[in-house]
Amino acid sequence: MNYAFYNGEYAPRDELKIPLFDRSIFFGDGVYDCMIGGKRGVYQLDKHLARLQKNAKLLYLDFGYSYNQLNDVINTLIRLSRLERYIVYIQVSRYAKERRHYCIDFTRCNLLITITEAQLDYDERPISLLSLEDIRYKMCNIKTLNLLPSVLASRHAESAGYDEAVLIRDGIVTECAHSNISIIKNGSLYTHPLTRDILPGITRENLLGECRKMNIPVYERCFGYEELICADEIIVTSTTHFARRVEKIDKNSINFCKNSPFYELSRHMYSEFIECCC
Amino acid sequence: MNYAFYNGEYAPRDELKIPLFDRSIFFGDGVYDCMIGGKRGVYQLDKHLARLQKNAKLLYLDFGYSYNQLNDVINTLIRLSRLERYIVYIQVSRYAKERRHYCIDFTRCNLLITITEAQLDYDERPISLLSLEDIRYKMCNIKTLNLLPSVLASRHAESAGYDEAVLIRDGIVTECAHSNISIIKNGSLYTHPLTRDILPGITRENLLGECRKMNIPVYERCFGYEELICADEIIVTSTTHFARRVEKIDKNSINFCKNSPFYELSRHMYSEFIECCC
Repeated sequence: MNYAFYNGEYAPRDELKIPLFDRSIFFGDGVYDCMIGGKRGVYQLDKHLARLQKNAKLLYLDFGYSYNQLNDVINTLIRLSRLERYIVYIQVSRYAKERRHYCIDFTRCNLLITITEAQLDYDERPISLLSLEDIRYKMCNIKTLNLLPSVLASRHAESAGYDEAVLIRDGIVTECAHSNISIIKNGSLYTHPLTRDILPGITRENLLGECRKMNIPVYERCFGYEELICADEIIVTSTTHFARRVEKIDKNSINFCKNSPFYELSRHMYSEFIECCC
Repeated sequence: MNYAFYNGEYAPRDELKIPLFDRSIFFGDGVYDCMIGGKRGVYQLDKHLARLQKNAKLLYLDFGYSYNQLNDVINTLIRLSRLERYIVYIQVSRYAKERRHYCIDFTRCNLLITITEAQLDYDERPISLLSLEDIRYKMCNIKTLNLLPSVLASRHAESAGYDEAVLIRDGIVTECAHSNISIIKNGSLYTHPLTRDILPGITRENLLGECRKMNIPVYERCFGYEELICADEIIVTSTTHFARRVEKIDKNSINFCKNSPFYELSRHMYSEFIECCC
Protein backbone atom coordinates (compact mmCIF):
# COMPACT_ATOMS: atom_id res chain seq x y z
CA MET A 1 0.00 0.00 0.00
CA ASN A 2 1.27 3.47 -0.86
CA TYR A 3 2.38 5.27 2.27
CA ALA A 4 3.49 8.73 3.32
CA PHE A 5 5.37 10.55 6.06
CA TYR A 6 4.79 14.21 6.88
CA ASN A 7 6.53 16.17 9.64
CA GLY A 8 6.75 13.19 11.96
CA GLU A 9 3.51 11.35 11.15
CA TYR A 10 2.92 8.28 9.01
CA ALA A 11 -0.31 7.66 7.04
CA PRO A 12 -1.58 5.80 3.97
CA ARG A 13 -0.67 8.14 1.11
CA ASP A 14 -4.24 8.73 -0.01
CA GLU A 15 -5.27 9.87 3.46
CA LEU A 16 -2.44 12.29 4.10
CA LYS A 17 -3.26 16.00 4.19
CA ILE A 18 -1.04 19.05 4.24
CA PRO A 19 -1.80 22.26 6.18
CA LEU A 20 -1.79 25.68 4.52
CA PHE A 21 1.38 26.46 6.49
CA ASP A 22 3.19 24.48 3.82
CA ARG A 23 4.38 26.91 1.18
CA SER A 24 4.49 24.21 -1.49
CA ILE A 25 0.75 24.97 -1.82
CA PHE A 26 0.97 28.71 -2.48
CA PHE A 27 4.41 29.20 -4.01
CA GLY A 28 5.80 25.81 -5.05
CA ASP A 29 8.38 26.83 -2.46
CA GLY A 30 10.47 23.75 -1.96
CA VAL A 31 12.74 21.11 -3.46
CA TYR A 32 12.26 17.41 -4.07
CA ASP A 33 13.94 14.25 -5.23
CA CYS A 34 12.74 10.91 -6.60
CA MET A 35 14.34 7.54 -6.10
CA ILE A 36 13.52 3.99 -7.10
CA GLY A 37 13.84 0.94 -4.95
CA GLY A 38 13.13 -2.72 -4.36
CA LYS A 39 12.88 -5.22 -1.51
CA ARG A 40 16.54 -4.70 -0.64
CA GLY A 41 16.47 -0.91 -0.51
CA VAL A 42 16.62 2.35 -2.39
CA TYR A 43 18.89 2.76 -5.43
CA GLN A 44 21.69 5.31 -4.98
CA LEU A 45 20.07 6.78 -1.90
CA ASP A 46 23.27 8.64 -0.92
CA LYS A 47 23.45 10.54 -4.18
CA HIS A 48 19.80 11.54 -4.10
CA LEU A 49 19.88 12.67 -0.48
CA ALA A 50 23.09 14.62 -1.06
CA ARG A 51 21.43 16.41 -4.00
CA LEU A 52 18.32 17.11 -1.93
CA GLN A 53 20.36 18.59 0.91
CA LYS A 54 22.28 20.77 -1.54
CA ASN A 55 19.09 21.98 -3.23
CA ALA A 56 17.42 22.78 0.10
CA LYS A 57 20.44 24.92 1.00
CA LEU A 58 20.22 26.78 -2.34
CA LEU A 59 16.69 27.84 -1.33
CA TYR A 60 17.91 28.90 2.15
CA LEU A 61 16.02 26.04 3.78
CA ASP A 62 17.52 24.86 7.03
CA PHE A 63 16.91 21.16 6.50
CA GLY A 64 17.69 19.58 9.83
CA TYR A 65 17.30 15.86 9.05
CA SER A 66 20.51 13.84 8.95
CA TYR A 67 21.19 11.07 6.45
CA ASN A 68 20.48 8.47 9.15
CA GLN A 69 17.18 10.05 10.16
CA LEU A 70 16.00 10.17 6.53
CA ASN A 71 17.15 6.60 6.01
CA ASP A 72 15.13 5.53 9.07
CA VAL A 73 11.96 7.22 7.79
CA ILE A 74 12.38 5.67 4.35
CA ASN A 75 12.95 2.22 5.85
CA THR A 76 9.81 2.60 7.97
CA LEU A 77 7.86 3.52 4.83
CA ILE A 78 9.25 0.50 2.99
CA ARG A 79 8.20 -1.73 5.90
CA LEU A 80 4.72 -0.20 6.20
CA SER A 81 4.04 -0.26 2.47
CA ARG A 82 5.27 -3.85 1.85
CA LEU A 83 5.91 -2.89 -1.79
CA GLU A 84 8.21 -4.95 -4.01
CA ARG A 85 9.22 -2.13 -6.33
CA TYR A 86 8.49 1.50 -5.65
CA ILE A 87 9.29 5.16 -6.10
CA VAL A 88 10.33 7.15 -3.04
CA TYR A 89 9.46 10.81 -3.38
CA ILE A 90 10.94 13.27 -0.88
CA GLN A 91 9.99 16.92 -0.62
CA VAL A 92 11.39 19.69 1.57
CA SER A 93 9.19 22.76 1.54
CA ARG A 94 9.17 26.06 3.37
CA TYR A 95 6.94 26.56 6.40
CA ALA A 96 5.17 29.85 7.07
CA LYS A 97 2.18 31.04 9.04
CA GLU A 98 1.23 33.74 6.55
CA ARG A 99 1.14 33.88 2.76
CA ARG A 100 3.86 36.45 2.12
CA HIS A 101 6.62 36.13 -0.47
CA TYR A 102 9.30 36.77 2.12
CA CYS A 103 8.54 35.83 5.71
CA ILE A 104 10.03 35.68 9.17
CA ASP A 105 11.55 32.30 9.86
CA PHE A 106 12.32 31.88 6.15
CA THR A 107 14.50 28.81 6.75
CA ARG A 108 11.90 26.63 8.53
CA CYS A 109 11.01 23.39 6.69
CA ASN A 110 8.39 20.72 6.22
CA LEU A 111 9.35 17.21 5.19
CA LEU A 112 7.11 15.02 3.05
CA ILE A 113 8.12 11.52 1.92
CA THR A 114 5.89 9.17 -0.07
CA ILE A 115 6.38 5.63 -1.26
CA THR A 116 4.38 4.56 -4.30
CA GLU A 117 4.14 1.25 -6.12
CA ALA A 118 5.93 1.22 -9.49
CA GLN A 119 6.55 -1.37 -12.20
CA LEU A 120 10.10 -0.25 -13.03
CA ASP A 121 10.45 -2.85 -15.76
CA TYR A 122 13.07 -2.54 -18.43
CA ASP A 123 11.48 -1.14 -21.54
CA GLU A 124 13.73 -1.27 -24.58
CA ARG A 125 11.19 0.39 -26.86
CA PRO A 126 12.76 3.52 -28.34
CA ILE A 127 10.87 6.74 -27.69
CA SER A 128 9.70 9.79 -29.63
CA LEU A 129 10.29 13.44 -28.72
CA LEU A 130 8.40 16.60 -29.58
CA SER A 131 10.60 19.71 -29.66
CA LEU A 132 9.30 22.75 -27.79
CA GLU A 133 10.66 26.08 -26.68
CA ASP A 134 12.29 25.91 -23.25
CA ILE A 135 10.35 28.57 -21.36
CA ARG A 136 11.52 27.51 -17.92
CA TYR A 137 13.15 29.81 -15.37
CA LYS A 138 16.90 30.21 -15.16
CA MET A 139 17.41 27.97 -12.15
CA CYS A 140 16.79 24.56 -13.69
CA ASN A 141 19.85 23.26 -11.85
CA ILE A 142 17.73 23.20 -8.67
CA LYS A 143 15.09 20.48 -8.46
CA THR A 144 12.27 22.70 -7.19
CA LEU A 145 8.52 22.34 -7.07
CA ASN A 146 8.05 25.02 -9.77
CA LEU A 147 7.33 22.44 -12.45
CA LEU A 148 4.56 23.99 -14.46
CA PRO A 149 6.53 24.55 -17.69
CA SER A 150 7.57 20.88 -17.57
CA VAL A 151 3.99 19.84 -16.87
CA LEU A 152 2.77 21.81 -19.89
CA ALA A 153 5.58 20.53 -22.12
CA SER A 154 4.68 16.95 -21.12
CA ARG A 155 1.06 17.63 -21.91
CA HIS A 156 1.87 19.07 -25.34
CA ALA A 157 4.13 16.12 -26.18
CA GLU A 158 1.92 13.33 -24.85
CA SER A 159 -1.34 14.71 -26.19
CA ALA A 160 0.33 14.91 -29.63
CA GLY A 161 1.33 11.24 -29.35
CA TYR A 162 4.99 11.69 -28.34
CA ASP A 163 6.66 10.12 -25.31
CA GLU A 164 8.55 13.18 -24.10
CA ALA A 165 9.28 16.80 -24.95
CA VAL A 166 12.77 18.03 -25.86
CA LEU A 167 13.32 21.64 -24.87
CA ILE A 168 15.24 24.24 -26.84
CA ARG A 169 16.39 27.56 -25.42
CA ASP A 170 17.89 30.15 -27.78
CA GLY A 171 18.77 27.45 -30.32
CA ILE A 172 20.39 25.16 -27.72
CA VAL A 173 18.97 21.77 -26.74
CA THR A 174 18.81 21.87 -22.94
CA GLU A 175 16.99 18.77 -21.70
CA CYS A 176 13.64 17.00 -21.82
CA ALA A 177 10.58 17.83 -19.73
CA HIS A 178 11.64 15.35 -17.07
CA SER A 179 14.84 13.72 -18.36
CA ASN A 180 18.32 14.68 -19.52
CA ILE A 181 19.36 14.20 -23.14
CA SER A 182 22.68 13.22 -24.73
CA ILE A 183 23.75 12.47 -28.29
CA ILE A 184 26.29 10.12 -29.83
CA LYS A 185 28.21 11.30 -32.89
CA ASN A 186 31.18 9.47 -34.41
CA GLY A 187 31.63 7.39 -31.29
CA SER A 188 31.64 10.28 -28.80
CA LEU A 189 28.95 11.32 -26.35
CA TYR A 190 27.85 14.96 -26.13
CA THR A 191 25.63 16.39 -23.44
CA HIS A 192 24.72 19.86 -22.15
CA PRO A 193 27.19 21.12 -19.52
CA LEU A 194 26.01 21.59 -15.93
CA THR A 195 24.76 25.19 -16.00
CA ARG A 196 21.61 26.66 -14.51
CA ASP A 197 19.78 25.57 -17.70
CA ILE A 198 19.68 21.85 -16.85
CA LEU A 199 19.22 19.56 -13.88
CA PRO A 200 22.34 17.63 -12.81
CA GLY A 201 20.64 14.27 -13.31
CA ILE A 202 22.02 11.32 -11.38
CA THR A 203 21.29 8.94 -14.26
CA ARG A 204 23.02 11.43 -16.59
CA GLU A 205 26.04 11.18 -14.29
CA ASN A 206 25.79 7.37 -14.30
CA LEU A 207 25.67 7.40 -18.12
CA LEU A 208 28.80 9.56 -18.31
CA GLY A 209 30.54 7.22 -15.87
CA GLU A 210 29.60 4.15 -17.93
CA CYS A 211 30.85 5.83 -21.13
CA ARG A 212 34.19 6.65 -19.52
CA LYS A 213 34.50 3.02 -18.35
CA MET A 214 33.91 1.93 -21.97
CA ASN A 215 36.49 4.46 -23.25
CA ILE A 216 33.82 6.43 -25.06
CA PRO A 217 34.91 10.10 -25.14
CA VAL A 218 32.48 12.36 -23.24
CA TYR A 219 32.05 16.06 -24.08
CA GLU A 220 29.90 18.28 -21.91
CA ARG A 221 29.10 20.98 -24.47
CA CYS A 222 25.97 22.54 -25.96
CA PHE A 223 24.40 21.38 -29.23
CA GLY A 224 21.51 22.65 -31.34
CA TYR A 225 18.50 21.11 -33.05
CA GLU A 226 20.37 20.30 -36.31
CA GLU A 227 23.06 18.38 -34.43
CA LEU A 228 20.36 16.62 -32.45
CA ILE A 229 18.46 15.25 -35.43
CA CYS A 230 21.70 14.35 -37.25
CA ALA A 231 23.09 12.42 -34.27
CA ASP A 232 24.07 8.76 -34.65
CA GLU A 233 22.02 8.04 -31.56
CA ILE A 234 20.14 9.94 -28.90
CA ILE A 235 19.90 8.84 -25.28
CA VAL A 236 17.37 10.15 -22.77
CA THR A 237 18.13 9.47 -19.11
CA SER A 238 16.00 9.65 -15.99
CA THR A 239 15.77 7.95 -12.61
CA THR A 240 12.64 5.94 -13.33
CA HIS A 241 13.38 5.05 -16.99
CA PHE A 242 17.18 4.63 -16.88
CA ALA A 243 18.54 5.25 -20.40
CA ARG A 244 16.13 5.25 -23.32
CA ARG A 245 16.96 5.57 -27.00
CA VAL A 246 15.15 7.91 -29.36
CA GLU A 247 13.73 6.89 -32.73
CA LYS A 248 11.86 10.04 -33.69
CA ILE A 249 12.01 13.78 -33.06
CA ASP A 250 9.07 15.76 -34.41
CA LYS A 251 8.65 14.33 -37.93
CA ASN A 252 12.29 13.18 -38.20
CA SER A 253 13.35 9.56 -37.86
CA ILE A 254 16.53 9.16 -35.86
CA ASN A 255 19.29 6.69 -36.55
CA PHE A 256 18.81 3.72 -34.36
CA CYS A 257 21.49 1.06 -34.52
CA LYS A 258 20.59 -2.12 -32.66
CA ASN A 259 24.22 -3.23 -32.38
CA SER A 260 25.67 -0.06 -30.90
CA PRO A 261 27.29 -0.26 -27.44
CA PHE A 262 24.49 1.98 -26.15
CA TYR A 263 21.91 -0.69 -26.67
CA GLU A 264 23.70 -2.85 -24.10
CA LEU A 265 24.49 0.07 -21.87
CA SER A 266 20.85 0.85 -21.36
CA ARG A 267 20.09 -2.73 -20.31
CA HIS A 268 23.21 -2.74 -18.14
CA MET A 269 22.02 0.32 -16.19
CA TYR A 270 18.74 -1.42 -15.47
CA SER A 271 20.54 -4.60 -14.37
CA GLU A 272 22.63 -2.61 -11.91
CA PHE A 273 19.46 -1.46 -10.18
CA ILE A 274 18.04 -4.99 -10.06
CA GLU A 275 21.28 -6.38 -8.63
CA CYS A 276 21.54 -3.68 -5.97
CA CYS A 277 17.94 -3.43 -4.82
CA CYS A 278 15.67 -6.26 -5.94
CA MET B 1 -11.17 34.98 12.20
CA ASN B 2 -9.34 33.91 9.06
CA TYR B 3 -11.42 31.35 7.16
CA ALA B 4 -11.04 29.04 4.20
CA PHE B 5 -13.08 27.09 1.67
CA TYR B 6 -11.80 23.99 -0.08
CA ASN B 7 -13.73 21.89 -2.59
CA GLY B 8 -17.07 22.45 -0.87
CA GLU B 9 -16.03 22.60 2.79
CA TYR B 10 -15.52 25.59 5.09
CA ALA B 11 -13.01 25.66 7.96
CA PRO B 12 -10.97 28.11 10.02
CA ARG B 13 -7.97 28.81 7.80
CA ASP B 14 -5.39 27.45 10.23
CA GLU B 15 -7.22 24.11 10.45
CA LEU B 16 -7.67 23.51 6.73
CA LYS B 17 -5.67 20.71 5.14
CA ILE B 18 -5.14 19.78 1.50
CA PRO B 19 -4.88 16.19 0.20
CA LEU B 20 -1.96 15.04 -1.94
CA PHE B 21 -4.39 14.83 -4.87
CA ASP B 22 -3.91 18.58 -5.16
CA ARG B 23 -1.14 19.20 -7.66
CA SER B 24 -0.34 22.60 -6.17
CA ILE B 25 1.73 20.55 -3.69
CA PHE B 26 3.93 18.68 -6.16
CA PHE B 27 4.03 20.92 -9.22
CA GLY B 28 2.70 24.37 -8.28
CA ASP B 29 0.14 23.34 -10.89
CA GLY B 30 -2.52 26.00 -10.64
CA VAL B 31 -3.46 29.66 -10.86
CA TYR B 32 -4.55 32.17 -8.25
CA ASP B 33 -5.77 35.68 -7.68
CA CYS B 34 -5.78 38.06 -4.72
CA MET B 35 -8.38 40.67 -3.92
CA ILE B 36 -8.95 43.15 -1.12
CA GLY B 37 -12.22 43.92 0.54
CA GLY B 38 -14.11 45.58 3.36
CA LYS B 39 -17.45 45.31 5.16
CA ARG B 40 -19.33 46.15 1.96
CA GLY B 41 -17.64 43.64 -0.28
CA VAL B 42 -14.65 42.78 -2.44
CA TYR B 43 -12.95 45.44 -4.58
CA GLN B 44 -13.18 44.87 -8.34
CA LEU B 45 -14.30 41.28 -7.86
CA ASP B 46 -15.44 41.01 -11.50
CA LYS B 47 -12.04 41.88 -12.92
CA HIS B 48 -10.21 39.47 -10.62
CA LEU B 49 -12.58 36.58 -11.27
CA ALA B 50 -12.45 37.20 -15.03
CA ARG B 51 -8.64 37.08 -14.89
CA LEU B 52 -8.74 33.90 -12.79
CA GLN B 53 -11.09 32.18 -15.23
CA LYS B 54 -8.87 33.20 -18.15
CA ASN B 55 -5.71 31.97 -16.42
CA ALA B 56 -7.33 28.63 -15.49
CA LYS B 57 -8.19 28.13 -19.16
CA LEU B 58 -4.61 28.89 -20.22
CA LEU B 59 -3.53 25.93 -18.05
CA TYR B 60 -6.25 23.70 -19.57
CA LEU B 61 -8.16 23.63 -16.29
CA ASP B 62 -11.87 23.12 -16.67
CA PHE B 63 -12.94 25.49 -13.94
CA GLY B 64 -16.62 24.86 -13.50
CA TYR B 65 -17.60 27.51 -10.93
CA SER B 66 -19.74 30.37 -12.24
CA TYR B 67 -19.32 33.97 -11.16
CA ASN B 68 -22.40 33.66 -8.92
CA GLN B 69 -21.17 30.48 -7.26
CA LEU B 70 -17.80 32.06 -6.49
CA ASN B 71 -19.50 35.19 -5.24
CA ASP B 72 -21.65 33.05 -2.89
CA VAL B 73 -18.60 31.26 -1.47
CA ILE B 74 -16.78 34.56 -0.95
CA ASN B 75 -19.81 36.10 0.76
CA THR B 76 -20.08 33.10 3.07
CA LEU B 77 -16.40 33.50 3.98
CA ILE B 78 -16.89 37.20 4.66
CA ARG B 79 -19.84 36.36 6.92
CA LEU B 80 -18.01 33.55 8.76
CA SER B 81 -14.82 35.55 9.22
CA ARG B 82 -16.48 38.78 10.42
CA LEU B 83 -13.41 40.69 9.24
CA GLU B 84 -13.53 44.45 8.64
CA ARG B 85 -10.75 44.55 6.04
CA TYR B 86 -9.30 41.50 4.43
CA ILE B 87 -7.54 39.81 1.54
CA VAL B 88 -9.43 37.16 -0.42
CA TYR B 89 -7.08 34.63 -1.99
CA ILE B 90 -8.50 32.24 -4.57
CA GLN B 91 -6.61 29.30 -6.05
CA VAL B 92 -7.59 26.86 -8.80
CA SER B 93 -5.25 23.88 -8.93
CA ARG B 94 -5.14 20.65 -10.89
CA TYR B 95 -6.44 17.44 -9.33
CA ALA B 96 -4.73 14.10 -9.91
CA LYS B 97 -4.57 10.73 -8.21
CA GLU B 98 -0.95 10.07 -9.18
CA ARG B 99 2.14 12.28 -9.31
CA ARG B 100 2.81 12.30 -13.05
CA HIS B 101 3.62 15.39 -15.11
CA TYR B 102 0.82 14.65 -17.56
CA CYS B 103 -2.16 12.71 -16.30
CA ILE B 104 -5.54 11.40 -17.28
CA ASP B 105 -8.27 13.85 -16.40
CA PHE B 106 -5.85 16.73 -16.87
CA THR B 107 -8.62 19.35 -16.70
CA ARG B 108 -10.02 18.44 -13.26
CA CYS B 109 -9.76 21.20 -10.61
CA ASN B 110 -9.61 21.96 -6.93
CA LEU B 111 -10.82 25.28 -5.57
CA LEU B 112 -9.29 26.92 -2.51
CA ILE B 113 -10.43 30.31 -1.20
CA THR B 114 -9.08 31.97 1.92
CA ILE B 115 -10.01 35.18 3.68
CA THR B 116 -7.32 36.78 5.83
CA GLU B 117 -7.36 39.88 8.00
CA ALA B 118 -5.40 42.79 6.53
CA GLN B 119 -4.71 46.38 7.53
CA LEU B 120 -4.89 47.87 4.02
CA ASP B 121 -4.10 51.37 5.25
CA TYR B 122 -2.88 54.03 2.92
CA ASP B 123 0.88 54.30 3.25
CA GLU B 124 2.32 57.29 1.46
CA ARG B 125 5.90 56.45 2.39
CA PRO B 126 7.95 56.08 -0.81
CA ILE B 127 9.69 52.73 -1.24
CA SER B 128 13.11 51.43 -2.24
CA LEU B 129 13.88 48.82 -4.92
CA LEU B 130 16.78 46.45 -5.39
CA SER B 131 17.45 45.55 -9.03
CA LEU B 132 17.91 41.86 -9.79
CA GLU B 133 18.06 39.69 -12.89
CA ASP B 134 14.63 38.49 -13.98
CA ILE B 135 15.15 34.72 -14.02
CA ARG B 136 11.45 33.84 -14.20
CA TYR B 137 9.90 31.59 -16.82
CA LYS B 138 8.46 32.98 -20.03
CA MET B 139 4.81 32.82 -19.00
CA CYS B 140 4.68 35.62 -16.46
CA ASN B 141 1.41 36.77 -18.04
CA ILE B 142 -0.30 33.87 -16.24
CA LYS B 143 -0.72 34.23 -12.47
CA THR B 144 0.42 30.72 -11.57
CA LEU B 145 1.63 29.09 -8.36
CA ASN B 146 5.20 28.80 -9.71
CA LEU B 147 6.38 31.75 -7.64
CA LEU B 148 9.79 30.69 -6.43
CA PRO B 149 11.84 33.23 -8.43
CA SER B 150 9.62 35.99 -7.02
CA VAL B 151 9.97 34.54 -3.52
CA LEU B 152 13.75 34.55 -3.84
CA ALA B 153 13.82 38.06 -5.34
CA SER B 154 11.70 39.30 -2.42
CA ARG B 155 14.05 37.65 0.01
CA HIS B 156 17.13 39.20 -1.61
CA ALA B 157 15.52 42.66 -1.61
CA GLU B 158 14.02 42.59 1.88
CA SER B 159 17.00 40.98 3.58
CA ALA B 160 19.18 43.73 2.03
CA GLY B 161 16.85 46.38 3.49
CA TYR B 162 14.82 47.21 0.36
CA ASP B 163 11.04 47.15 0.08
CA GLU B 164 10.79 45.34 -3.25
CA ALA B 165 12.87 43.91 -6.08
CA VAL B 166 12.80 45.33 -9.60
CA LEU B 167 13.51 42.68 -12.22
CA ILE B 168 15.54 43.13 -15.39
CA ARG B 169 15.51 40.69 -18.29
CA ASP B 170 18.01 41.18 -21.12
CA GLY B 171 18.40 44.86 -20.24
CA ILE B 172 14.65 45.51 -20.05
CA VAL B 173 12.85 46.39 -16.83
CA THR B 174 9.94 43.93 -16.66
CA GLU B 175 8.21 44.30 -13.30
CA CYS B 176 8.79 43.93 -9.55
CA ALA B 177 8.72 40.67 -7.59
CA HIS B 178 5.02 41.14 -6.84
CA SER B 179 4.04 44.46 -8.42
CA ASN B 180 4.05 46.20 -11.80
CA ILE B 181 6.28 49.21 -12.41
CA SER B 182 5.78 52.37 -14.49
CA ILE B 183 7.83 55.51 -14.98
CA ILE B 184 6.97 59.15 -15.59
CA LYS B 185 9.17 61.17 -17.91
CA ASN B 186 8.36 64.66 -19.17
CA GLY B 187 4.73 64.30 -18.16
CA SER B 188 4.12 60.95 -19.90
CA LEU B 189 3.72 57.53 -18.33
CA TYR B 190 5.69 54.55 -19.67
CA THR B 191 5.10 50.94 -18.72
CA HIS B 192 6.07 47.52 -20.08
CA PRO B 193 3.61 46.28 -22.76
CA LEU B 194 1.46 43.24 -22.01
CA THR B 195 3.69 40.39 -23.21
CA ARG B 196 4.43 37.05 -21.58
CA ASP B 197 7.15 38.84 -19.56
CA ILE B 198 4.78 40.64 -17.18
CA LEU B 199 1.53 40.08 -15.34
CA PRO B 200 -1.44 42.12 -16.59
CA GLY B 201 -1.97 43.76 -13.21
CA ILE B 202 -5.43 45.11 -12.44
CA THR B 203 -3.97 48.04 -10.48
CA ARG B 204 -1.64 48.70 -13.46
CA GLU B 205 -4.75 48.88 -15.63
CA ASN B 206 -6.43 51.18 -13.09
CA LEU B 207 -3.35 53.44 -13.11
CA LEU B 208 -3.40 53.65 -16.91
CA GLY B 209 -7.13 54.49 -16.80
CA GLU B 210 -6.58 57.23 -14.23
CA CYS B 211 -3.75 58.71 -16.33
CA ARG B 212 -5.94 58.80 -19.42
CA LYS B 213 -8.69 60.54 -17.44
CA MET B 214 -6.11 63.18 -16.39
CA ASN B 215 -4.92 63.54 -20.02
CA ILE B 216 -1.51 62.15 -19.15
CA PRO B 217 -0.14 60.37 -22.25
CA VAL B 218 0.37 56.63 -21.67
CA TYR B 219 2.93 54.59 -23.61
CA GLU B 220 3.10 50.82 -23.22
CA ARG B 221 6.70 50.29 -24.29
CA CYS B 222 9.84 48.73 -22.82
CA PHE B 223 12.49 50.72 -20.96
CA GLY B 224 15.89 49.84 -19.50
CA TYR B 225 17.71 50.45 -16.24
CA GLU B 226 19.16 53.83 -17.29
CA GLU B 227 15.74 55.18 -18.20
CA LEU B 228 14.40 53.82 -14.93
CA ILE B 229 16.86 55.60 -12.68
CA CYS B 230 16.61 58.82 -14.73
CA ALA B 231 12.79 58.88 -14.57
CA ASP B 232 11.00 61.91 -13.13
CA GLU B 233 9.01 59.52 -10.99
CA ILE B 234 8.53 55.79 -10.59
CA ILE B 235 5.23 54.18 -9.62
CA VAL B 236 4.86 50.63 -8.35
CA THR B 237 1.34 49.19 -8.45
CA SER B 238 -0.21 46.16 -6.78
CA THR B 239 -3.59 45.07 -5.47
CA THR B 240 -2.75 45.30 -1.78
CA HIS B 241 -0.56 48.45 -1.91
CA PHE B 242 -2.33 50.44 -4.67
CA ALA B 243 0.22 52.84 -6.21
CA ARG B 244 3.47 53.50 -4.40
CA ARG B 245 6.21 55.92 -5.36
CA VAL B 246 9.88 55.02 -5.39
CA GLU B 247 12.62 57.06 -3.75
CA LYS B 248 15.59 54.77 -4.22
CA ILE B 249 16.81 52.07 -6.61
CA ASP B 250 19.96 50.26 -5.52
CA LYS B 251 22.21 53.12 -4.40
CA ASN B 252 20.47 55.74 -6.60
CA SER B 253 18.08 58.32 -5.21
CA ILE B 254 15.09 58.84 -7.46
CA ASN B 255 13.41 62.17 -8.15
CA PHE B 256 10.49 62.49 -5.89
CA CYS B 257 8.31 65.54 -6.39
CA LYS B 258 5.69 66.01 -3.68
CA ASN B 259 3.51 68.24 -5.87
CA SER B 260 3.26 65.98 -8.93
CA PRO B 261 -0.20 64.76 -9.97
CA PHE B 262 0.92 61.23 -9.10
CA TYR B 263 1.07 62.04 -5.43
CA GLU B 264 -2.67 62.70 -5.45
CA LEU B 265 -3.38 59.84 -7.82
CA SER B 266 -2.00 57.31 -5.40
CA ARG B 267 -4.22 58.59 -2.59
CA HIS B 268 -7.16 58.74 -4.98
CA MET B 269 -6.79 55.04 -5.87
CA TYR B 270 -6.90 54.16 -2.19
CA SER B 271 -10.00 56.36 -1.64
CA GLU B 272 -11.80 54.56 -4.44
CA PHE B 273 -11.39 51.29 -2.57
CA ILE B 274 -12.60 52.80 0.70
CA GLU B 275 -15.65 54.35 -0.99
CA CYS B 276 -16.58 51.12 -2.76
CA CYS B 277 -15.99 48.56 -0.03
CA CYS B 278 -15.53 49.97 3.46
